[in-house]
Amino acid sequence: MSKQKFVYMFEEGTEGQKELLGGKGANLAGMTALGLPVPPGFIVATTACVKYYDEGKKFDAGIEKEVFECVAKLEKKMGKKFGDAADPLLVAVRSGSRASMPGMMDTILNLGLNDITVEGLAKKTNNPRFAYDCYRRFIQMFSSVVMDQDKHACERVLDEVKAKRGVKEDTELTVEDLKEIIDRFKADYKKDHPEGFPQDPKEQLIKSIEAVFRSWDNPRANTYRFMHNIPYNWGTAVNVQSMVFGNKGETSGTGVAFSRNPSTGENKLYGEYLMNSQGEDVVAGIRTPHNISELEKENKKIYDEFAAIAKRLEKHYKDMQDMEFTIEEGKLYMLQTRNGKRTATAALRVAVELVKEGLIDEKRAVCMIDPKQLDALLHPQFDKKALKEAKEVSKGLAASPGAAFGRICFTPEGAHEAAKKGEKVILVRVETTPEDIEGMVAAQGILTARGGMTSHAAVVARGMGRCCVAGCGQLIIDEKAKTCIINGKKYSEKDSISLDGSTGCIYDGCLKTEAAQLTGDFGTIMAWADKYRALKVRTNADTPKDTQRAVELGAEGIGLTRTEHMFFESDRIGPMRQMIVAKTEEARRAALEKLLPMQRKDFIGIFTALEHRPATIRFLDPPLHEFVPHDDAGVKSLAKDMGISYEELKTTIEGLHEFNPMMGHRGCRLAVSYPEIAEVQTRAIIEAAIEVKKSKGFDVIPEIMIPLIGEVKEFKYIKDIVVRIADEIIAKSDVKIKYLVGTMIEIPRACLTADEVAKEAEFFSFGTNDLTQMTFGFSRDDAGTFLDEYYQKKIFESDPFARIGQIGGGKLMEITVELGRKARPDIKLGICGEHGGDPSSVEFCHKIGLNYVSCSPFRVPIARLAAAQAALKD
Amino acid sequence: MSKQKFVYMFEEGTEGQKELLGGKGANLAGMTALGLPVPPGFIVATTACVKYYDEGKKFDAGIEKEVFECVAKLEKKMGKKFGDAADPLLVAVRSGSRASMPGMMDTILNLGLNDITVEGLAKKTNNPRFAYDCYRRFIQMFSSVVMDQDKHACERVLDEVKAKRGVKEDTELTVEDLKEIIDRFKADYKKDHPEGFPQDPKEQLIKSIEAVFRSWDNPRANTYRFMHNIPYNWGTAVNVQSMVFGNKGETSGTGVAFSRNPSTGENKLYGEYLMNSQGEDVVAGIRTPHNISELEKENKKIYDEFAAIAKRLEKHYKDMQDMEFTIEEGKLYMLQTRNGKRTATAALRVAVELVKEGLIDEKRAVCMIDPKQLDALLHPQFDKKALKEAKEVSKGLAASPGAAFGRICFTPEGAHEAAKKGEKVILVRVETTPEDIEGMVAAQGILTARGGMTSHAAVVARGMGRCCVAGCGQLIIDEKAKTCIINGKKYSEKDSISLDGSTGCIYDGCLKTEAAQLTGDFGTIMAWADKYRALKVRTNADTPKDTQRAVELGAEGIGLTRTEHMFFESDRIGPMRQMIVAKTEEARRAALEKLLPMQRKDFIGIFTALEHRPATIRFLDPPLHEFVPHDDAGVKSLAKDMGISYEELKTTIEGLHEFNPMMGHRGCRLAVSYPEIAEVQTRAIIEAAIEVKKSKGFDVIPEIMIPLIGEVKEFKYIKDIVVRIADEIIAKSDVKIKYLVGTMIEIPRACLTADEVAKEAEFFSFGTNDLTQMTFGFSRDDAGTFLDEYYQKKIFESDPFARIGQIGGGKLMEITVELGRKARPDIKLGICGEHGGDPSSVEFCHKIGLNYVSCSPFRVPIARLAAAQAALKD
Repeated sequence: MSKQKFVYMFEEGTEGQKELLGGKGANLAGMTALGLPVPPGFIVATTACVKYYDEGKKFDAGIEKEVFECVAKLEKKMGKKFGDAADPLLVAVRSGSRASMPGMMDTILNLGLNDITVEGLAKKTNNPRFAYDCYRRFIQMFSSVVMDQDKHACERVLDEVKAKRGVKEDTELTVEDLKEIIDRFKADYKKDHPEGFPQDPKEQLIKSIEAVFRSWDNPRANTYRFMHNIPYNWGTAVNVQSMVFGNKGETSGTGVAFSRNPSTGENKLYGEYLMNSQGEDVVAGIRTPHNISELEKENKKIYDEFAAIAKRLEKHYKDMQDMEFTIEEGKLYMLQTRNGKRTATAALRVAVELVKEGLIDEKRAVCMIDPKQLDALLHPQFDKKALKEAKEVSKGLAASPGAAFGRICFTPEGAHEAAKKGEKVILVRVETTPEDIEGMVAAQGILTARGGMTSHAAVVARGMGRCCVAGCGQLIIDEKAKTCIINGKKYSEKDSISLDGSTGCIYDGCLKTEAAQLTGDFGTIMAWADKYRALKVRTNADTPKDTQRAVELGAEGIGLTRTEHMFFESDRIGPMRQMIVAKTEEARRAALEKLLPMQRKDFIGIFTALEHRPATIRFLDPPLHEFVPHDDAGVKSLAKDMGISYEELKTTIEGLHEFNPMMGHRGCRLAVSYPEIAEVQTRAIIEAAIEVKKSKGFDVIPEIMIPLIGEVKEFKYIKDIVVRIADEIIAKSDVKIKYLVGTMIEIPRACLTADEVAKEAEFFSFGTNDLTQMTFGFSRDDAGTFLDEYYQKKIFESDPFARIGQIGGGKLMEITVELGRKARPDIKLGICGEHGGDPSSVEFCHKIGLNYVSCSPFRVPIARLAAAQAALKD
Repeated sequence: MSKQKFVYMFEEGTEGQKELLGGKGANLAGMTALGLPVPPGFIVATTACVKYYDEGKKFDAGIEKEVFECVAKLEKKMGKKFGDAADPLLVAVRSGSRASMPGMMDTILNLGLNDITVEGLAKKTNNPRFAYDCYRRFIQMFSSVVMDQDKHACERVLDEVKAKRGVKEDTELTVEDLKEIIDRFKADYKKDHPEGFPQDPKEQLIKSIEAVFRSWDNPRANTYRFMHNIPYNWGTAVNVQSMVFGNKGETSGTGVAFSRNPSTGENKLYGEYLMNSQGEDVVAGIRTPHNISELEKENKKIYDEFAAIAKRLEKHYKDMQDMEFTIEEGKLYMLQTRNGKRTATAALRVAVELVKEGLIDEKRAVCMIDPKQLDALLHPQFDKKALKEAKEVSKGLAASPGAAFGRICFTPEGAHEAAKKGEKVILVRVETTPEDIEGMVAAQGILTARGGMTSHAAVVARGMGRCCVAGCGQLIIDEKAKTCIINGKKYSEKDSISLDGSTGCIYDGCLKTEAAQLTGDFGTIMAWADKYRALKVRTNADTPKDTQRAVELGAEGIGLTRTEHMFFESDRIGPMRQMIVAKTEEARRAALEKLLPMQRKDFIGIFTALEHRPATIRFLDPPLHEFVPHDDAGVKSLAKDMGISYEELKTTIEGLHEFNPMMGHRGCRLAVSYPEIAEVQTRAIIEAAIEVKKSKGFDVIPEIMIPLIGEVKEFKYIKDIVVRIADEIIAKSDVKIKYLVGTMIEIPRACLTADEVAKEAEFFSFGTNDLTQMTFGFSRDDAGTFLDEYYQKKIFESDPFARIGQIGGGKLMEITVELGRKARPDIKLGICGEHGGDPSSVEFCHKIGLNYVSCSPFRVPIARLAAAQAALKD
C-alpha cells in the first residue's frame, strides 16, 4: 500500500478533487492546469485536518515533513527561499473547505517576513515602505487570526501613531512610523506570548496551518455548518500560495469580480478593484474601491486579459464565476475562482441564459439552482429602499417566509375583528395553539415569543404561506394589559410592526412591501424541471383558497387535507366540542350531524378547486382535548352553551387529560372508539365528490386516509366502515364515484408490518413528523430543551425534524416501500408533512421510489425543482 | 387439488390433529384408535368454524352435506336412523377448541328426539319415563343453549309442576308430568319462535353446530381467550357423538375422574360418579356424587376396567388424565380424556413422579409445567381454611401475587411510621407515584383504585415481590377524611383488610397466611431446567435485600439496577432535588457530592450480595420532574429547605414541565445535558467495586448501562466520560477492576443503527417497555383509555406490554441482534423490563439468540423454567 499523501502542489491536483483539496484548492489546481497566471503554491488536504482532530489536535510529523517538501518545491519554482535574507519567499495562507464556508479563518498574507527578511524585501523591491508595511500587516494578521490576540489592540496602536504623526491614512505613514508600529506590535505580542513573535518562517507556517484547522471548529463555523448541513467530519483544506503584491504602487492592485451580475444575472462583468492595495483593504472598507468597469478605462490591457479569463473560466466551469485577482506591477494574477453566489432572480436568469448561449443544457440548468432559494421569489418582500431605512427592533426565528406589516393584536378574536374591518394586523402571541387558527388566518403575520421552527405557529403559518417570526426571546407579552415589550421597547395594540419571515427580523412601524415577481425565467426553469422529474408534487391544503394557490404553483393534487383544521373555525368549534364531550353515541351523532353539511361544503370547495386532480383527505387526527377549552372561563361558557353543569363538563374535560398526548388517544384510535366519526367524515367526502361530479363534471377520486395506523386490523376495522358507507351512498346516487382507502405511515410498527397493511391499504403516505418522533423517541414539543446541547456536542449535526434522518426514519421508510410493494405492486406511495418540501428529503423520496411528495402550497415549486434534480442525479 | 375436508369420523382422525379437530375431538379419535369403548361419532373441524365466520356467519352448504354423510355413516355403524320412529339415533353435541376453553357452549344431549321418536325410544327401551325425561332435558338444553331462551323459564315450569304434584325430586315426576312439562316447554318456545320447536333432527343438528360456532364469539369466550392468549382465528371444532345413557336406571351412571390427584399430585384415581344420571346432574349439583373409590365397592368390574383404562391413557399420553365416562346398563363408555389441569404443587409432583416411573424423561417433565403456575408457589398464601371462612369485600386486578393483611393506611408517611413500630399495614391509594415508594416498601400490600397491570403500583410491587391489588373500581377514597368505601362498606385507618394479589380478592379483616412451600419436587424440576436451558437468568434488583432474594431464587447476576429508585428514599430526595433545581454546574456538583457516598454504599451492598456475579447498573433514567414536588405545600417546604424563594423554585419546577415526558428530557439525555451526573454515578460504581474487591475479595465486573440511546455519538459522548473517570479511579487504586459500558436498546433508531452502536457498546440490554411504546406509538400510561376498545373489536388479542409483539418490537429486536453481532460478534445481549419474566417472551428471546433475560426476583424461577422449555422446543 502506498503511503497516504496529504499535501499537493497546485499542479498535482485536479479540479474534481473538491473533497480532498477543498473548493478553493481544487479550483486553484484547475486554473493552474488551464495555464492561467496563478501564483504557485500547494494545498494541505482536508484529510490532514481530519487527522489533526482524530489525533487530539496534534499536528502530524509526517504531514509537517510533506509541507516542507512542498515548500522546497515552491522555493525552487520561485527561485526564492523561505527566510532568505536577500530574497525571501513569502506566502499567503487561506482556508478552503469542500463547501464555501464563511465563518472560518481569514487569510494571512505576507507570511515569511521577519526582522531580517523584511530588510531583504526592502532592498530587493527597493521599496522599504512597502516591505515594512507588509511586515506590519503580517504581524497584525498573525496576532489576531492565528494567536487570537485582541483585534482592536493593533488598530489602537495604528491610530495612536497616526494621531501622533498627525496623519489620517495608513498610506501616509513613513518607514520609521511603520518600524515603531512593528516594535509596539511585537511588544504587545510578547506580553501574552513570552517567546516573542516567531521569527522562523517555518514556525509561522505550521502555526498558521494549525490555526486554519482550529478555525474549522470555532463557533461561527459550527453555526454555519449546522445551518447548511455541512458535516463536521469533512474538515478543511489549507491553501499556501506564493505572494503577489497588489500594494507595490500604482501599477499594482487587487480586486474581486463576478462574470455576471450576481444580483440580476445580467451577463456583464461585475465587481470592484483597488489599485495599490492588498486584499484586506478592500474588505475593511478603509478605501472605497472602484467599479470593475473603471479598470477598462484605467488599464485596458489588464481589463481585457481579465475579461477573457473570466469568459474562459465561465466556459470551463459552465457557470458564473466569482474571482479574485491581483495585479503586481502591471501583471495580472488569478488568486481564486469559484461558482458565484447569486440571488434567486439572478440564478434563474443565469441558468436560462447559459442554456441560450449553448454553454449548458436544460438538465444542467435545472441542477444549477438551489431549490431553497426559490422561496424568496414566492413571497412578498420588503421594498429594498424601505428596508435600508428601517429600524430593526429585534430578531426571532425565520419561521415562515414573506414580509408583512400591521397593527399589533394580542388575541385571535381581536385579529379577526380587525381583519373584518379591512385592517392589516400582526398577531402577537406567547405561542399559538389550535384555538388561534382564526386569528392566524386573519393576520398578515404572526410573531411568537416561544417555539421553534416546528412549533405550532411555524408549521401552521408555513402551511398557509403566512409570514411568521417565532421564538423571539426578547418579546415579553402582558396579555392582560394588552401590551408587550420587544427588546426593551413597549408596544400596545395602537402600534404597528413589520415582520420579515425570511430573516426573522422585526421592524418598528409599517414597512412598504412588494409582491413576488415571478419572471419568465422562473416559468422556463419550472417547465424544464417538470420535464425531467419522476416524482409527482402534491400539496398540503385544508381550504379551497390554499388549494387554488397550490394549483397555480403547479401542484398536481392534494397529498394531505387535515380535516381537523376545519373544525377550529368559529361556526364549527361549537358542535365539535359537543361531539367531544358527548356521553352517548346518540349525542355524538347529533353533534356530528351538525358538522356534516359544513364539512361537505369544505370538500366541495376543495374538489372544485382541484378540478380533476386527486385529493388525499385525512380523517380526524389530533387528541380531542385540543379542541376543548381548558381555562375556567372557557369551560363555564361552553357548559352554558351546552346546557350542562360546569362541574360535569370540567370532569369530562379532565378525563381527556393525557400524560403523553402525542402517544395517546388520537389518529385512527379516535375512529376505533367512535366509529360514527369515520361514518360522518366518509359521508361528507363521498357526497361532496358526487355533488362536484354532478354540478361541474369533475371526476374527483377522493383518497381517504386513515392516520396513525400501527396494525392492519385497526386499518381494516375503519376501512370496512368507510367502504360500507361510501358504497351505500354511491349505490343510491346516479353517478359513479371511485375512491381509494389508504393510510398514513407514521408508526414504526406500521413500517415493520407494511406487507400486512398493504394487503388492505391502497396507498401509503409517510407522516414523517410523527415517524421521526417515534423513531428517535423524542417529542417535537419537548426536544427543544435538550437538542441544543446535542448540536453543541456534535451528537446531532442537523435538526431531524427538518431533514429525514436517513438512518433512522429513512431506513424504516425503505423497509416500508419494500414490504408494501411486495404485497401490492401498484400501491401508491407518497409523503406528506414538513419533509415533503425539503430538497434533501425530496431527493431521498425519489431514491426510495415514492410516487409523490406533498408540501405546503408555497413549497410546491421548490419540491418540483428538487424532484427534477433528484431524477437528474440518478 | 382434492377438495378440502371439513368433517371427520372419529376413526378418520388422529390424536395429533388438535389444530384441525380440537383437543376433545383429537382425543376421541385417539381413544377410538386405541380400541377403547368410545361411542361412535364425528367431528366438524375447526376449519369449518373459521369458514363460518369468514362467510359472514353462514353455514356452508358443502359442509352441511359432509355432516349428513357422516350422520349416514353413524347410522350404519349404530344400526339406528336419525328420526326413526322405532329406534331413533340420538347424539350429543359438544364444543371442542384447540385449547381447553371454559366459557364456550355447554353440551347438548339427546339430540334427535321429537314428538315421534320419543315414543319409539319409550317403546324400544321399554322405559317411557326415561324417554320423556330425555326429551324434556333435550328441549330444555336446546332452548337455552342453542336458542338463547331464558334458562330459568324452564326451571320455573319444572318447579311449578313439581309443586302441583307435591313432589320434590325430578325423579319423582311421572310420564304424564313429563309430558305436561314438555308441552309447556314447547308452548314457551313457540312464543319466541313461531315456527315451533324443531321436529326435524337434521335441523336440530345443524342449529346446534351453528350454536357451537357462535359460542366461540360470546363475551365469556372472548374474555377467556384474551386472558390466555388464544387467537380468535383458531375457531372451535364440534363433536357429534352417539348417545349413551347414564340415566337408564341403577346399572347406569356417569362420572368424571383424574388419573392422579389434581390438588396434590398423589398417584391415585381421583374423581366422582353418580349412578342413574346424565352429565348435567353431576354438574348442577342437584344430587351429591360419590367419590370414585366407592365405585370399587359398588361395581368392582367396572371400576377395574376404568382404572385400567386410566392407567393406559396416562401411559399413552404420558401425562395425568382428566376423563369423563358413562356406564350404560353395566357397560363402560369413555366420553372424553385430556391432560388434567392441576395445581402448581401437583404439577411438580406429577412431573417428578412420571420421571421416576420411567414414563417420561427429564426434558419432558420440564416441558410439562406451565412456568406461570410457579408464581403461586413463590409467595405467601392465605391459609386455605381461613380463606373458606373469609368475607370477600371486593375484587381488583391481581397485580402482584402473594397474600397480605394489615391495618389500612392512606399515606406513605403513615405506612412508614406504622411499619417502624412493627405494625403490619396495607397502603390504600387512588394510584401510586414514585413519591410513595417509601410507603410501598413499608406496607405488606398495596391496594389502588386506579391503574392496570402495568400501572406504577403494579410494576413496582411486582419488582419488590410485594402483594398488590390494583384498579379496584369499587374503592372510593376520601384522603382528607382518611376513610374509604369499598363496595359500599366504609373503612377507616382503624380497620384491617387482607389482599390476595394472586386473585385480586379483597377480604375484610386479617386472614391467616402461610409461607411459600418449596417442596423437594420444585428443586428437582429447577435443577433439570437449569441443565437444559441456554439463556442465563438475571434479576432486576435495586437493593441488597432484593438482590439476596433473587440469588436465592437462582439469579445469575443483575440485569438491571435502576439507580433512580435509590434517590426516592427519604435521606436522598433532598440532595436529589437540590441537584435538579440547581442553576449552575457548581451547585449541581455540590448536591451530587452529597449523593455520592450514599449511592456508593448502595452499590457496595448490591455487589456484596452478588458475590462474583455480574451487575448491570443503569444510569439515571426518569425525567427530573418526577423527583420534585408539584403541589404548593411541597414546593414551599422545598424552597424553605433550599433557602430560596417559593416563586423562584416554582418557576424552576414549571420549567421542567413537558408535553410528552415519555419522549422528553430523560435517559442519556440527562447525562448529555449534565455530564456531572454521569461522572458521579461512575465514581460511585467503580469505587464500590474496588471497596468490595478489597474487603470481600469478590471480583465484581460492573456493567454500566446508558439508557435511551438513539445515536452512537450520544453513547460515545457518555462512554468517554465513564471511561475517563473509571480509569482515573482504577489507576489510583491498588486493585484491578474490569468494567463494561453498554446500552439499553429501547429507541427504534438504536435498533436500526445497532451496527453503529455496537462498535462502541460492549453490551445491549433490550428495554422492551419503552421499545414497545415507541414501536406502537402509544404510551403505557394513556393506552388504557382506548385499548379496551381494541380488545373488544379484536384489533389486538393480547396486551402488547405483557408479551413481546413479535411483529412489532420483536422484529426490531431481530434486526438489532443481527446488526449488533455483525459489528461485534461477542456482544453480550440481554433483556430487562417486564417482558423478561413472561414465558412466551422468554421463548422469543431464546429464539433470537439473546444471552440472558432479567426479571424481578420472584420471576427468576419462572424465567429459568421458561428458558429451559424454549431450549427444549428447539
